[in-house]
Amino acid sequence: MIILGLDPGLGTTGWGLIRAEGNRLSHLANGKLKTDTAAPLARRLAHLDTMIAALIADHDPQGAAVEEVFVNTNPQSTLKLAHARGVALCAVARHGIAPGEYAPRLVKKAVVGTGSAEKAQVHAMVARLLPGVKIDGADAADALAVAICHAHHLASARRLP
Amino acid sequence: MIILGLDPGLGTTGWGLIRAEGNRLSHLANGKLKTDTAAPLARRLAHLDTMIAALIADHDPQGAAVEEVFVNTNPQSTLKLAHARGVALCAVARHGIAPGEYAPRLVKKAVVGTGSAEKAQVHAMVARLLPGVKIDGADAADALAVAICHAHHLASARRLP
Repeated sequence: MIILGLDPGLGTTGWGLIRAEGNRLSHLANGKLKTDTAAPLARRLAHLDTMIAALIADHDPQGAAVEEVFVNTNPQSTLKLAHARGVALCAVARHGIAPGEYAPRLVKKAVVGTGSAEKAQVHAMVARLLPGVKIDGADAADALAVAICHAHHLASARRLP
Repeated sequence: MIILGLDPGLGTTGWGLIRAEGNRLSHLANGKLKTDTAAPLARRLAHLDTMIAALIADHDPQGAAVEEVFVNTNPQSTLKLAHARGVALCAVARHGIAPGEYAPRLVKKAVVGTGSAEKAQVHAMVARLLPGVKIDGADAADALAVAICHAHHLASARRLP
């Protein structure tokens, strides 16, 4: 099963694709999607939508997970993030995938073991869980982490009686 | 010029279509788009996207305006609204339209004359400005109001030297 993880943002959306076979995870690809900070909001969102749709068309994932919005102290930043996240969820659902949604703390707990892990710890643990991966920055690391979190969630759901 | 106004919301998105010829405005259609409150967030957003795309395909507007998010005291409500608004802006921009964005206070000021107008005043003024209109509830009234605000804005921009 191929899982797409997304860490949405208006300026930079991290993405990561992993393959999950039972409990075995492997890395497929990761990167970041950037929109032009000088463009109007609507055009940036449409560009993000196009880029996510292209990722999905190229890799045909069967599962997806999108990190939840961390409610920032700056309401305008939170709003921008939520606009981008709405577009990301919509792009995934339009492809017929019901995405998993995980809070940042839950993702860190699933990958590092503690919800208060630092970014560097997440990065290091993602690199350990996906041997040979070359991670394209912090947003891509977070996206791979949310994909791993979703794979764990699906695997444990299958183990339930 | 046909202008689509949108008052986005996750549960209910109001929409209104007007025709603007110079300073003359006329009503074309209005209504509300509803998503299933029992469905997962991503599916609701994809449904909203499909409905807005269908409106645009049916009526082929040359302009559009989307009301800005009012930052609610409840951060979760504000987040849901921002997810829906992101999808609305994206759907409009995908059609090649650069939408106008107006804060609720500005819309009220443009239509009623005061930014602190009540919903009933907005409704009454929209009905006066668009003779013969039958308005499908408060969200559709707000959507027609934002379309009218955009028409005024475009008309005054044309009058600039």
